Amino acid sequence: MHSEFDLINRFLAPASTGAAGGVELGIGDDCALFEPTPGERLVVSVDTSVADVHFPAEAPAEAIGHRALAVSLSDLAAMGAHARWCVMSLTLPEADGDWVSTFAKGFHALCDTTGVALAGGDVSRGELAIGVTVMGEVPPAAALTRAGAKPGDCLAVTGWLGGGAGGLARWEAGDRDLAMPLLRRYLLPQPRLEAGMALRGLASAAIDISDGLLADLGHLRHASGVGVELSPEALPLADGLVAALGEQGARQAALRGGDDYELLISLPPECLDEAQQRLAALDLPLTVIGRITAEPGLKGAEASSPGWQHFPGETP
Amino acid sequence: MHSEFDLINRFLAPASTGAAGGVELGIGDDCALFEPTPGERLVVSVDTSVADVHFPAEAPAEAIGHRALAVSLSDLAAMGAHARWCVMSLTLPEADGDWVSTFAKGFHALCDTTGVALAGGDVSRGELAIGVTVMGEVPPAAALTRAGAKPGDCLAVTGWLGGGAGGLARWEAGDRDLAMPLLRRYLLPQPRLEAGMALRGLASAAIDISDGLLADLGHLRHASGVGVELSPEALPLADGLVAALGEQGARQAALRGGDDYELLISLPPECLDEAQQRLAALDLPLTVIGRITAEPGLKGAEASSPGWQHFPGETP
Repeated sequence: MHSEFDLINRFLAPASTGAAGGVELGIGDDCALFEPTPGERLVVSVDTSVADVHFPAEAPAEAIGHRALAVSLSDLAAMGAHARWCVMSLTLPEADGDWVSTFAKGFHALCDTTGVALAGGDVSRGELAIGVTVMGEVPPAAALTRAGAKPGDCLAVTGWLGGGAGGLARWEAGDRDLAMPLLRRYLLPQPRLEAGMALRGLASAAIDISDGLLADLGHLRHASGVGVELSPEALPLADGLVAALGEQGARQAALRGGDDYELLISLPPECLDEAQQRLAALDLPLTVIGRITAEPGLKGAEASSPGWQHFPGETP
Repeated sequence: MHSEFDLINRFLAPASTGAAGGVELGIGDDCALFEPTPGERLVVSVDTSVADVHFPAEAPAEAIGHRALAVSLSDLAAMGAHARWCVMSLTLPEADGDWVSTFAKGFHALCDTTGVALAGGDVSRGELAIGVTVMGEVPPAAALTRAGAKPGDCLAVTGWLGGGAGGLARWEAGDRDLAMPLLRRYLLPQPRLEAGMALRGLASAAIDISDGLLADLGHLRHASGVGVELSPEALPLADGLVAALGEQGARQAALRGGDDYELLISLPPECLDEAQQRLAALDLPLTVIGRITAEPGLKGAEASSPGWQHFPGETP
């Protein structure tokens, strides 16, 4: 058994400031203290991952640590932000040092590969949940938002779709081998931070796909006040998805499944080549899946599913 | 029943950017976007309040909203920071619109009185818990930390002690009238933000008292590498505390009780008058309760209790 302070000091604090700069004071005081880059805007998001709501409680602890950070970083990616710092709020049913140590390993590993410093946090008793607040920076007026899509723009998506839903299906079917690509897509999503930064100045709007393509496309359409003609046959399907779910299931997973953490963007047609070249340099495809229209609404796919919601209500 | 987006839009987003400045983009996109004050340092803390761990689940929703923000702001106060922005992560067992509306009222009211903008958040299904990440600013080298106490400094505390534990005792005894001062101390704590800023340049170290005076004094002693001679008879007791707990119980509540959210500071004796005058202007007493010593350890009180811990362990 470990005390709260012991857990923080032993597992969360080490290597917490890593290679990332700008941390004047990390874990161990009342607050963390950062030196922002002069002239940049501060970009902040929080996501909480609750056991057996957002991820299986019995998933590998290292994957849970990775995933909790990844889903928050995905929001920074969607703004085109440079990820800098994070703070974590961890609630745990018991102080299991082995579990926390492995969890922290997954969290810190993604900190290292993304250059993010874990600079503060708290640990409480409660059901297993991880809240991660991420902070990044972006030059003034360079942030990508949901609101800039224009009629005539291309609609495009990074990477591959349906892997989150496909991986969940394989997990529920009993697969546990994290070498399986679909399971990796579900449990070890890669936030598209470099892609988001590469799309600054090219994308007219952006959102990350966490609730499912159609649901997140709905947010982008409404924020921009535009419509979309979708080309469902163009959706880039995740590796192994058709084998796992069949042709029809794979299409539905790509359209409506959550947890893909790809970027959905709009961009003027004349920017497409440049955007695809920049992402190719990151080994990431950028696939055109539709067109922005002036008339509102969605053509090319039934828009009936609201995507994942915690509290499905009368006014989705 | 309300959907997740509905809850955010209806109850959390309104008035979220209030009178506070620097918010370029609030609730409704992937991230919030802020304009930091040039030259200032960014100060960040997160605290999660879990139902029936940190507060009674059946406490008034408005008090729960107030308290969740107050305990996070208290950390900014302890750094001498100017509170600017916050993001909230709310997990709820069910989408009860009335409860969330009342909860949000308490949260927003404290945002208003402290000039803080609620600029983002997420809502999930789970046991009732509220994670609040607060962001503030402080000029370079002006932040108060736990590490600056020097031998010969006075040890002093703002306000009154024991009210958190006394209020909890009254709550557990069945009192529910929030007009009772002790209950207010417990359920509606006031973060000492103005006091923290007023103590910049005077206090040599600071920490907020959340885990109990002796426990938080232990953090300050260890971070500063100093000892303390405490004068327990000097502790300023909360209004009504002796009547509620008796003389001996009141002293123990002041020494070991948690949830007081006062500031515990050290300062050179020659700064004491000025500090007391500045706090008097805020209607807040600053009471000397001991002296910093070069020899480590605590004199004047048994240091056996580690204060509140979520996971009491072998190495507190």
